[in-house]
Amino acid sequence: MNRTQLFNNIIRKRSFLCVGLDTEFDKIPSFLKNEKDPVFEFNKRIIKATQQYTVAYKLNVAFYESRGSDGWISLESTLKYIKKRYPDIYVIADAKRGDIGNSSKMYAQAFLKNMPFDAVTVTPYMGEDSVAPFLSYEDKWAILLALTSNKGADDFQYHNDEGIKLFERVLTVAKKWGTTDNMMFVVGATRAETIREIRKIVPDHFLLIPGIGAQGGSLAEVSKYGLNNKCGLLVNSSRGIIFADNTERFDKVAGQKAREVQMEMEGYLSEKNLI
Amino acid sequence: MNRTQLFNNIIRKRSFLCVGLDTEFDKIPSFLKNEKDPVFEFNKRIIKATQQYTVAYKLNVAFYESRGSDGWISLESTLKYIKKRYPDIYVIADAKRGDIGNSSKMYAQAFLKNMPFDAVTVTPYMGEDSVAPFLSYEDKWAILLALTSNKGADDFQYHNDEGIKLFERVLTVAKKWGTTDNMMFVVGATRAETIREIRKIVPDHFLLIPGIGAQGGSLAEVSKYGLNNKCGLLVNSSRGIIFADNTERFDKVAGQKAREVQMEMEGYLSEKNLI
Repeated sequence: MNRTQLFNNIIRKRSFLCVGLDTEFDKIPSFLKNEKDPVFEFNKRIIKATQQYTVAYKLNVAFYESRGSDGWISLESTLKYIKKRYPDIYVIADAKRGDIGNSSKMYAQAFLKNMPFDAVTVTPYMGEDSVAPFLSYEDKWAILLALTSNKGADDFQYHNDEGIKLFERVLTVAKKWGTTDNMMFVVGATRAETIREIRKIVPDHFLLIPGIGAQGGSLAEVSKYGLNNKCGLLVNSSRGIIFADNTERFDKVAGQKAREVQMEMEGYLSEKNLI
Repeated sequence: MNRTQLFNNIIRKRSFLCVGLDTEFDKIPSFLKNEKDPVFEFNKRIIKATQQYTVAYKLNVAFYESRGSDGWISLESTLKYIKKRYPDIYVIADAKRGDIGNSSKMYAQAFLKNMPFDAVTVTPYMGEDSVAPFLSYEDKWAILLALTSNKGADDFQYHNDEGIKLFERVLTVAKKWGTTDNMMFVVGATRAETIREIRKIVPDHFLLIPGIGAQGGSLAEVSKYGLNNKCGLLVNSSRGIIFADNTERFDKVAGQKAREVQMEMEGYLSEKNLI
């Protein structure tokens, strides 16, 4: 999917919501546990209930991989289901991969060629040749970690070289590796106040913002500092939507939660005169 | 496996070789391609031929993951085979994982609990809470990236904060997260001259050294600067051993290549009075 298509979907749906399918097996409602593939069954129902309010899904690969090859089958089935039913939805493999070029090429192939994800999250530590393979597929994206939402972000991401923090260097250097049409950056919502500074370095790129909801980030602040004239934001919510309820009504409640976020987003898009 | 067991294996086998099972499907000899699981068949034969010269295998997860759930089955089969036949061999998942705590916990569970790997390679960018879950299993290890062997290492790893380079900060800060019994660090062999400096920060830790062979690193230099009084090194060779030949004799040639490296290592262990 290219940037124009993504932007058009945002305008049409009045939403820049990304629903995170962090489908932890133990949290799936018990009545689904007898299904052949409970994770896929759960995801299908969440997707049906939320798809009209969201422009993207993010599959957190950790939760699938923790179940080995079975988990990979759930991942593949979910992706296939989304791409068949809702081909205009942007699907992210939140995999945080990155290795020497030869190995990164294999990871890129896994997610962007063999599986039809639109994007993969990538970690910057190993530099350009570890990221480049993810930029080599047309209309596919690398989403590079810049400033993350967790406590450990303080350990190295603020390491300061002559006034330039590591995450700023990642943004400054890495934006030259690709374009606004094949790169996004991860910026945690729990650091909303720094989004203003980050927009000075990457005014036009899309930012993927995790940390809304369970992690405590504010959608209002993120939108205030992060929205640009092509929207430029995908804001993710995972647990706050998909595990809001664990009865037989879990999917209806997830749909309601997604709708609430979408309506709030509609307000911010309108304030910005984008809709 | 704990550090004493690993060291005893090194002394007994007179080797600190780690054979990298970077089993790229396209490079497998064609006569194996009709097997039910060509990757597993290839790995089995390589393992049989090299196991007496090596103390560790490193499975580069990228090459398995690129084949989706089928690849994961090959990965699981290979691991199970090694652990059943050669339980004293240390097996590393070279996965370079790392995410917020909740997700890293899932990755740790995937490799260290659900699959019986001894260790996983982990990327440091997201800090302590992204690494901690890999340190929570007894006799299991996190192997943290410090200085990598690729060109892109120059992009961020030398980012210099008041005289402390990022990779030095990673070593200095992260060594406090675990112990010499559950953490190792990745240091590329192509940067052998810096191993001396690195040994000042982490004199006692094991280092996992990739980059020997196809990537051009020198085993002599790595051994000179890196060996400590508990060996403290696992030196990996992948393509130089497993793809040294692609005829029906590929496994015999791999065994010969592994033996050559082992013999060179025996010399360095002897010079250091470890054997």
